[in-house]
Amino acid sequence: MHDPKLTTARVARLATTDPDGRPHLVPIVFALEGDTLYSTVDRKPKRLTKLRRIENARVRPDVTILVDHYDEDWSRLWWIRLRGRARVLDDGEERKHALALLQRKYLQYRDEPLDGPVLAVDITEVREWAA
Amino acid sequence: MHDPKLTTARVARLATTDPDGRPHLVPIVFALEGDTLYSTVDRKPKRLTKLRRIENARVRPDVTILVDHYDEDWSRLWWIRLRGRARVLDDGEERKHALALLQRKYLQYRDEPLDGPVLAVDITEVREWAA
Repeated sequence: MHDPKLTTARVARLATTDPDGRPHLVPIVFALEGDTLYSTVDRKPKRLTKLRRIENARVRPDVTILVDHYDEDWSRLWWIRLRGRARVLDDGEERKHALALLQRKYLQYRDEPLDGPVLAVDITEVREWAA
Repeated sequence: MHDPKLTTARVARLATTDPDGRPHLVPIVFALEGDTLYSTVDRKPKRLTKLRRIENARVRPDVTILVDHYDEDWSRLWWIRLRGRARVLDDGEERKHALALLQRKYLQYRDEPLDGPVLAVDITEVREWAA
């Protein structure tokens, strides 16, 4: 879980499952602690868009996350895929702690009030690939 | 469908659905023609990994693709999400044409024989977001 490629990555993609059973996909910024990955809803104007992933995760908590590196030199490609179980933190200490982790990793978060829910994903499976 | 952000993007992420109903996620390189997105299995050593997405698409053809841009200036973030129906081309003229499109877009493909199946996704829905 502590592969530096994973911990230092700035962006990941989160797949959840829509009510109609089709995959839903968004880029996320995230912070890791132990075997848990945290992300949040960052800006109010995006709230409606972002809630989709949150509502999906409440109903079907089996989610998949991909961190990858694209390079025109294809011998340098890699990806790390995480499967896990999502929990939505609407309040509480763990949510507060997660927001602090996110603000530590992303300066961009320091200027805005983070008042949305946190998505916590307890990672159960890690698959790595490199060219 | 012809947004230059989409047509010039070098990498995308493809979400399919695993047999257990959970989302599966991989980075892909792709070429677009009209409303169809093509990708293929590029290197033999990855074949087993790559077939997963192909087998998923055969069984559950509703797939989702995300093209996005990450930037430390979050006012420059954007993403384009495509939903579509996948078709697996094991042979035939359309497959040959798709491989030629991929080789035209990616010099990296010109040195290797492309002998795997092509995943064709007929795009039915496009959702764009920008900060």
